[in-house]
Amino acid sequence: MREFINKEEGSIGFVPTMGYLHQGHLALVEKARQENDLVIVSIFVNPTQFGVGEDYEEYPRDLKRDTKLAETGGADAVFAPSVDEIYNPDHGTVVKIEGITENLCASSRPGFFEGICTIVSKLFNIINPDRAYFGQKDAQQVLVVKKLVAELNFAVEIRTIPIVREADGLAVSSRNQYLNDEERESATVLYRALELAEEIINEGERRVEVVKEKISSLIKEETDNIDYIEIVKQNSLKNLSEIKGSVLIALAVYIGQTRLIDNLMLEV
Amino acid sequence: MREFINKEEGSIGFVPTMGYLHQGHLALVEKARQENDLVIVSIFVNPTQFGVGEDYEEYPRDLKRDTKLAETGGADAVFAPSVDEIYNPDHGTVVKIEGITENLCASSRPGFFEGICTIVSKLFNIINPDRAYFGQKDAQQVLVVKKLVAELNFAVEIRTIPIVREADGLAVSSRNQYLNDEERESATVLYRALELAEEIINEGERRVEVVKEKISSLIKEETDNIDYIEIVKQNSLKNLSEIKGSVLIALAVYIGQTRLIDNLMLEV
Repeated sequence: MREFINKEEGSIGFVPTMGYLHQGHLALVEKARQENDLVIVSIFVNPTQFGVGEDYEEYPRDLKRDTKLAETGGADAVFAPSVDEIYNPDHGTVVKIEGITENLCASSRPGFFEGICTIVSKLFNIINPDRAYFGQKDAQQVLVVKKLVAELNFAVEIRTIPIVREADGLAVSSRNQYLNDEERESATVLYRALELAEEIINEGERRVEVVKEKISSLIKEETDNIDYIEIVKQNSLKNLSEIKGSVLIALAVYIGQTRLIDNLMLEV
Repeated sequence: MREFINKEEGSIGFVPTMGYLHQGHLALVEKARQENDLVIVSIFVNPTQFGVGEDYEEYPRDLKRDTKLAETGGADAVFAPSVDEIYNPDHGTVVKIEGITENLCASSRPGFFEGICTIVSKLFNIINPDRAYFGQKDAQQVLVVKKLVAELNFAVEIRTIPIVREADGLAVSSRNQYLNDEERESATVLYRALELAEEIINEGERRVEVVKEKISSLIKEETDNIDYIEIVKQNSLKNLSEIKGSVLIALAVYIGQTRLIDNLMLEV
């Protein structure tokens, strides 16, 4: 990868992914293509960001399809290292971030953001990009990576794109393919819940607990297994005493065995 | 710093220091000068590698003198950031390394190598050097930084120089200035102990405990406050069942209030 990069000139746009590319990834590639001379997509299902009992083994993989999609989408190169190449058997370096990894996805996925910070640091050092592209669907990840870049002084600009959705509002995700037909229908409840929250807030509701309660009731029509419903400050993920300013509404919900996330950013 | 570097061309040699430069640092600068187009010395007393009750506040500082020494020694630039510039008030990113930070200096200095890995990662990302220079006196630090570079995929070559010693054998160190005349004389016991160990081993002794015992007896003529005496494998810092192969003998000893370290590498 380094040899390839060293031969090329100009700015590098980097899209790190775990593969099984969908429209969200391709929107990242498209943006990277517009803003850089060289576009590199990495495909690596990173074991260190999966916890015990999570879907590391089952996570969908299709390198041939992904490579074709990345190429058609505008990538100049795909970086798809093996696990052994990235983590040697004695690997013992971990990049840890505190301050914004205490709630939301961090609570139910211990080690998740350590895994992300470690792999992102490694990939940034390998690719040395000018810009790296992340989807706003992983809102906490975007904040974590921005903090990582600022605090470890990476010379990388983090660029984001809005959530890409299916026609019925479901946020696109590699994990959507786990859903059977019935679950696929139920899964629209995440977006419907966010729309409901927006509506209530636009009508004047400012109490966090009231909005959460209404979201919760709606979701419970489809599933009892809610991981979290959070309404927090956009930039710090800290709790709000009232819904005001730059607000992030974030959800994680199990539809059957599949954990799905979604979020909405509001200026109130 | 980045603006300065981006204007220059050619390879970058980087010498990270905590300042109060001595002959050891200048030997690093000299080597960097020989091997690179641009030589950058950083001077930063890194608070995160000092523990509670350690000498962060007292650590000697003299930026004016250091800048002149670095320049005379061959540096093109000195990077001396403030603590606030390096660590913002919300700073929460830590780079942690496991496997070689469980013994030697790590035992008595919890958080020490986390502090080193974090600041080294930050400085590497700011300076983006081709080569970075470290003294073999900090043998464990050299191993830790090499592992860090390998595992976070920094595109930096780690270069080392042998321990620089005073005429009577004392390893040069910024902390030597803490010693009063009597302590300065006692301090030679570290090197004398290493010489004794070498002699015994050359005579055929292969038992770790016997060599440690003899070192210990000699040191106790000067001080009762021994932090550690370790005889371990050079590359892994793991315990040896017998003294054979590439061996590191490492000492940390308090002379008065001052903690001094020294080491010797042997091929047996």
